[in-house]
Amino acid sequence: MSKIKSWVVPQAGADMELQELDAGPLGPDEVEVKVEYCGVCHSDLSVKNNDWGNGQYPAVLGHEVIGRVVAVGEHAKGLEVGQRVGVGWTSESCMHCGECLSGHHQFCGESVATIIGHRGGFAETVRSHWAWAIPLPEGLEPSTAGPLLCGGITVFQPFLAYGNVKSTSRVGVVGIGGLGHMAIKFANAWGCEVTAFTSSPSKAEEAKGFGAHKVVSSKDAEDIAKAAGTLDLLIVTVNVPLDWPALINTLKPKGRMHVVGAVLEPIPVAAFQLIVGQREISGSPTGSPTDIAKMLDFCARHDIRPQTEHFPMSRINEAFEHLEAGKARYRIVLEADF
Amino acid sequence: MSKIKSWVVPQAGADMELQELDAGPLGPDEVEVKVEYCGVCHSDLSVKNNDWGNGQYPAVLGHEVIGRVVAVGEHAKGLEVGQRVGVGWTSESCMHCGECLSGHHQFCGESVATIIGHRGGFAETVRSHWAWAIPLPEGLEPSTAGPLLCGGITVFQPFLAYGNVKSTSRVGVVGIGGLGHMAIKFANAWGCEVTAFTSSPSKAEEAKGFGAHKVVSSKDAEDIAKAAGTLDLLIVTVNVPLDWPALINTLKPKGRMHVVGAVLEPIPVAAFQLIVGQREISGSPTGSPTDIAKMLDFCARHDIRPQTEHFPMSRINEAFEHLEAGKARYRIVLEADF
Repeated sequence: MSKIKSWVVPQAGADMELQELDAGPLGPDEVEVKVEYCGVCHSDLSVKNNDWGNGQYPAVLGHEVIGRVVAVGEHAKGLEVGQRVGVGWTSESCMHCGECLSGHHQFCGESVATIIGHRGGFAETVRSHWAWAIPLPEGLEPSTAGPLLCGGITVFQPFLAYGNVKSTSRVGVVGIGGLGHMAIKFANAWGCEVTAFTSSPSKAEEAKGFGAHKVVSSKDAEDIAKAAGTLDLLIVTVNVPLDWPALINTLKPKGRMHVVGAVLEPIPVAAFQLIVGQREISGSPTGSPTDIAKMLDFCARHDIRPQTEHFPMSRINEAFEHLEAGKARYRIVLEADF
Repeated sequence: MSKIKSWVVPQAGADMELQELDAGPLGPDEVEVKVEYCGVCHSDLSVKNNDWGNGQYPAVLGHEVIGRVVAVGEHAKGLEVGQRVGVGWTSESCMHCGECLSGHHQFCGESVATIIGHRGGFAETVRSHWAWAIPLPEGLEPSTAGPLLCGGITVFQPFLAYGNVKSTSRVGVVGIGGLGHMAIKFANAWGCEVTAFTSSPSKAEEAKGFGAHKVVSSKDAEDIAKAAGTLDLLIVTVNVPLDWPALINTLKPKGRMHVVGAVLEPIPVAAFQLIVGQREISGSPTGSPTDIAKMLDFCARHDIRPQTEHFPMSRINEAFEHLEAGKARYRIVLEADF
């Protein structure tokens, strides 16, 4: 039985150690992907530290994988050995429930998260159900594409899921970090007017470099108030409490505040603020396989690349410290060097 | 100058008195409607008591008017003397802003509420902009139609505004009162499976009479939990705090909780509950003139009538006491008897 070199979190909160794990037989619907690059997502850190209480250890993290198919299960469809694919947050769904059959596989009740009870991409190889190994389009630079597979689809999803986000829309993005900087790039390429909300004055120029047309201080109530009633969509990527009434007030009638940051404190929503302008507040996880494929195609056509910092995977613990210290600009990619 | 007999609230909180008010000249875009029936809405009570702080006194309340056009301004379009119309929460909008020109007149920043700085329908006649006097379709019983003009459109709006409410949807209605009982009738006629949530066991059978297929106790966490993950749309018509996490949890993936009750305490929304199932929370005011016309046509075709209690308008103060005591079953209509 083959051994897979893997970076293992032995217990919650511990540093990762290089181990060799038994691969076991490849499932009939699985493919095996030789990892070339794997992004580091904030949720890797959350699971490493068991912030959400659902971690399973020993754990192999990493769920923004770019690599090549090296083995194909006997029932796997649509993929061939040698093909370059991406694997994201989800690596399996049942394929027969109503959600899967409706094309909304991300809501499958039996879906498997790549890094919870399943071995992720900080390893020589990673496995996923064939449907969740998404072929990379020609023209998409593989070394920086990893972060699209989780962080990217998370902020691309509101553009796909709601029919009213058009090129004529005004889009705000709160938080200019790993997710937010990609949201700005997407909104700009989508043809929208883009307003960045950041608490860091130092990020204002960078936000404009990503495609923001305006920058608002998310800590300055007066600055936020100037944007009142202007936005069709406000994507919130941070996970800390904010001046929610002021932010909701930036929405136009029928505008939407879409939350993708896992804010733990409940957001206090005043019914009146929703009622008077028929406003909406929503959230979403990642996307379905076809959603991810659409995003990758969009990125290839618009030459959208996450802004990345690169570490060899052998320096994985250093990379996590860099992320935990809030120093990532803007997304970390580990390059496999086994 | 003609005098209009009107039931006047002289100051916030005071009983109404019959007075004769100068009508003044009819505006060029206005029509004058002789009031036959006028519903009593909870918002009449809120403005009477200045609960929202925006009342203007002396006030003439009443904004669920059914009556006949008796005068037409020189620029008024589409209406003729003698025609039966309804006038609701809004009696004027600017007709030239982006919202008005887009057909979303209810979001016009210059719109006039019928009972705030404008004389309402508890009077011999009421005036409105021609666009906001909605012709009643043939076959709609006028004596019970008044409550449709505000309470009705308030709960009909989520069916119109969001493309994903279909006859295959499962719809919940929280609060079986003036608004909620109409929401049940609409949802049933729309072809949906309808679940009523009520804190009053005594209303369970009545809710079924209105068209509910299931009844859940809104005070029983276990009962609510049984409905987890089942609803596409949950319309909240009450204005008191509820077990929000449990109610949000009744939504399916992509489900929507739509709030039309003016809950004053902020609703605490956990981001995770939105993110995992791509759920939405929204609210809406009333509807545009064409939305109201569509609703009236729908009601005529499906013979939907609000469940009403009737008082002569001369007993208006008694009717308000009945409403304030929570005794209305389910909507009060005053019949003009000047």
